[in-house]
Amino acid sequence: MRLRHKPGAADQVKENAHYVIPNPSEQKGKWNEVFQNDQPIHIEVGTGRGRFMVGMAKANPHINYIGIEKYTSVISDALDKLIEAEVPNLKLLNVDAQKLTDFFEDGEIDRVYLNFSDPWPKVRHEKRRLTYKTFLNMYQQILKNDGEIHFKTDNQDLFEFSIMSMANYGMTMHFLSLDLHNSDFEGNIMTEYEEKFSSKGNRIYRVEAAYRN
Amino acid sequence: MRLRHKPGAADQVKENAHYVIPNPSEQKGKWNEVFQNDQPIHIEVGTGRGRFMVGMAKANPHINYIGIEKYTSVISDALDKLIEAEVPNLKLLNVDAQKLTDFFEDGEIDRVYLNFSDPWPKVRHEKRRLTYKTFLNMYQQILKNDGEIHFKTDNQDLFEFSIMSMANYGMTMHFLSLDLHNSDFEGNIMTEYEEKFSSKGNRIYRVEAAYRN
Repeated sequence: MRLRHKPGAADQVKENAHYVIPNPSEQKGKWNEVFQNDQPIHIEVGTGRGRFMVGMAKANPHINYIGIEKYTSVISDALDKLIEAEVPNLKLLNVDAQKLTDFFEDGEIDRVYLNFSDPWPKVRHEKRRLTYKTFLNMYQQILKNDGEIHFKTDNQDLFEFSIMSMANYGMTMHFLSLDLHNSDFEGNIMTEYEEKFSSKGNRIYRVEAAYRN
Repeated sequence: MRLRHKPGAADQVKENAHYVIPNPSEQKGKWNEVFQNDQPIHIEVGTGRGRFMVGMAKANPHINYIGIEKYTSVISDALDKLIEAEVPNLKLLNVDAQKLTDFFEDGEIDRVYLNFSDPWPKVRHEKRRLTYKTFLNMYQQILKNDGEIHFKTDNQDLFEFSIMSMANYGMTMHFLSLDLHNSDFEGNIMTEYEEKFSSKGNRIYRVEAAYRN
């Protein structure tokens, strides 16, 4: 996504420690205490400007959500939405997704969302794609045994890569759409990016995948 | 595909026993004797009017091909092409693909091609789809350990189903294209159906899959 400097973003994030949890490694294994309930926890890796997470949190009050975004200027926009929505079941983390195991205990998470992740089109950057096998391995550690990855993108190359990567990792697939907006899938909550690009006629690809136990 | 009655098709097939092998179960485990060499054997299940198999046989003289088609009126068209091409490395079987293990020994085959297979769109017919798990199991029996399935189709629903079926069977995927004719794949030989439907702008989907050993 296009980044811009947002004056005051860092201060705003610091001032809203109730929403953007500081030092998340201190909460490892204790996220249910942060939310003060035992609801399932779904995370989004690369939560961007937050429309998906806020929409999901509103639509599913019995699920806890954690949106992870490394860029402070970007998560600041998600924070604006969260402050306005005032939902208790969404927290944000302003951290790099490379270290999810620092923040979450084994089996602490029920679902990982990946939406319109950076495609990293060059082959020499494929290890950075969020569906590369090292990431699939990291998600497996923090997910429960029956946990799932829900992935959508409009990037054909990234989707092709991701399906192969998941299959080659031994994952199972339970929902796959090569044209989400013309499928019978209900309850789709669009990201900012999804709305923009699907309105131009781009196909949205989506898959739900799980680990073989 | 659209079937029509073709007068004389059954007689033509019988008269060309050198090309359309009668009683193929008698050749089980002995296909290299039929071809009189030790070349790898690639089969196509549902070979239709034969353009793909004849094209492949011409392009790859060091591979033996066997095209399998149950409809006599259809395989008769493939036979016409084969008689004209006069290639020694292609044989046809006028049999039903439900019984491949009757015709081929365990590990006798190096590759299975599935091209534009009948999508059987109704859920109650899913067991008839050539990528249903019972078929994947049957191909696994006749394929060598490193054997592959190469599958292409323009049918989005069938491709979605097939990717999930292959992943859930535990197969690996080594080439996947969601738009074959706009990919960097080289050497694609089009089927009759493929030429017709891709010229209308339909996307062609393709995957190469293998079994986990």
